[in-house]
Amino acid sequence: MKKVAIYGTGAFGYAILKHLDNKHDSSFQLSAYDHHPGTTEHLREKRSHPIFHKDTIISHRPEFFDTPEELVANADIIVLAVPSRATTEVTRLISENAPNNVTIVNIAKALDKATGKRLSEIVEQAAGDFPYHYAQLSGGTIASDLFHHEPLGIDIASEDESTRETLKQLFTSSNLTVMTTDDVRGVEYASALKNVISILAGIVKGLGFSYGSETHIISTTADYVGTICVEKLGAKPETFSIGSQCWGNDMWMSCTGNTRNRAFGELLGSGKPVSEALEEMHQGHKLVEGVNTLQVLDQLPEFKEVETIKCTARSHR
Amino acid sequence: MKKVAIYGTGAFGYAILKHLDNKHDSSFQLSAYDHHPGTTEHLREKRSHPIFHKDTIISHRPEFFDTPEELVANADIIVLAVPSRATTEVTRLISENAPNNVTIVNIAKALDKATGKRLSEIVEQAAGDFPYHYAQLSGGTIASDLFHHEPLGIDIASEDESTRETLKQLFTSSNLTVMTTDDVRGVEYASALKNVISILAGIVKGLGFSYGSETHIISTTADYVGTICVEKLGAKPETFSIGSQCWGNDMWMSCTGNTRNRAFGELLGSGKPVSEALEEMHQGHKLVEGVNTLQVLDQLPEFKEVETIKCTARSHR
Repeated sequence: MKKVAIYGTGAFGYAILKHLDNKHDSSFQLSAYDHHPGTTEHLREKRSHPIFHKDTIISHRPEFFDTPEELVANADIIVLAVPSRATTEVTRLISENAPNNVTIVNIAKALDKATGKRLSEIVEQAAGDFPYHYAQLSGGTIASDLFHHEPLGIDIASEDESTRETLKQLFTSSNLTVMTTDDVRGVEYASALKNVISILAGIVKGLGFSYGSETHIISTTADYVGTICVEKLGAKPETFSIGSQCWGNDMWMSCTGNTRNRAFGELLGSGKPVSEALEEMHQGHKLVEGVNTLQVLDQLPEFKEVETIKCTARSHR
Repeated sequence: MKKVAIYGTGAFGYAILKHLDNKHDSSFQLSAYDHHPGTTEHLREKRSHPIFHKDTIISHRPEFFDTPEELVANADIIVLAVPSRATTEVTRLISENAPNNVTIVNIAKALDKATGKRLSEIVEQAAGDFPYHYAQLSGGTIASDLFHHEPLGIDIASEDESTRETLKQLFTSSNLTVMTTDDVRGVEYASALKNVISILAGIVKGLGFSYGSETHIISTTADYVGTICVEKLGAKPETFSIGSQCWGNDMWMSCTGNTRNRAFGELLGSGKPVSEALEEMHQGHKLVEGVNTLQVLDQLPEFKEVETIKCTARSHR
């Protein structure tokens, strides 16, 4: 029986835990840990989360550990559901406490805030000689949709075929379609960069342009960004296709749905300065992931020459 | 000076006329014809349209003809802005009255209702020995967006390079980006089939699924339809890419914007029978183009084996 450890029970980590718990699948055993002791305690005793989807009850099956060392000690698969800034620290802990050849599944959609590196590179650096398998899980899955058993799609990327197959079987359910690819690098760029395009879409909306203008600018920018990723950053073309769950699906979800990045862009487009718009989002306890990615694009020379999207029509009205 | 003739001043034909009139470009001369004599008269005398965007005034430059024979007699470029069912009749008239080697630009996004053929095939059949150049204009441009000078994008497809260049120069403006391709067949399929996916998106919404489910189902269906068009119908892959204006742009506009096909699908999804849903749309004077395309898909063997999209999650709620 495989042991699956969820490292972090924030909104999305908890949604993954609940998704796997719902499968009532006896071929794996679930466990979880949260760095807030109160959250762990609540999950263990009340079988519900103190903050997210409070009315949802989880079964008696998942085990909750008080320390991360206990969580990872016997794990076969670790789902990394921590903020991207904690990646190095958590990887070090895993490399010191988990069994050799454990599978690490990252679900953060970001580039490293300090260096612009992909998170798989940060994990590799922090893991040193420790042997592990790595996968990235990305797609058009917001936590609340997972909770409501909406039909959704994700991509799982890993260079190792048996890791892909194991994870596909683990996550697939009647409502979740899992596609697999070996293009880890491409999926990482796609997941992080669609958030930046989502901010742009919000700006276009905030400036007062029509929905047809939004879709025109999203499609041409996505084409442009995808081309840079494929031609200069070594990603595979299919990762940047319309049917790609981490790109074609998630980008349109992020760009035209009710998302934080788009909302932030709309504030900018309507004339708010960046600091004020960020403040307004933070007051609503909303982190805008795309802003961090936008900031580190400067560290990627491939994006230095990106042309500004010109909305010249406005001056002709 | 090139003579540009707009054949039909319905909502979109009139929007094209106004778009070209706005360019104040003395390198071409504009003329138009409508089969309602009252419309032609109104346009000529009042310099405005009796039905569409009544407050818009057009310049004194465009000439309005009382007969289609006069319109096409000296034309260099004819913009075919008639319902697709009139294609054969109008092409015959053109072949009998227009100069040899005239350029025909079709703007209808449909397959022939009786045979499932592409409209370029219908034109070819009807033209007989008459020599002409052909182009298809498609993209995410609804008439009202064109009137409001929104930044928009279109594809112009023609097998003939000089026709592509001439038309790109003709239609490009500060707000309209024109991309060109030689994949006429691909652009025709893309323009017609995105309407069918738009109906599907509406059904998913009408059934009560989340926006994340919609984007998942749109992206996977688009991928599937695009693959059939490329692998079985001879279209080019780039025509079915995210950056393609007749596909990546127009499909998302049609699928997630405020469009007739989506609205019709929503009625179906909410439980209305097809006849009732069509009746409701017709009462609002709204033609649902995608229904015709859906009906003729049966005539395309390549689509006969399309699997039904299964929304199995619902039964697990």
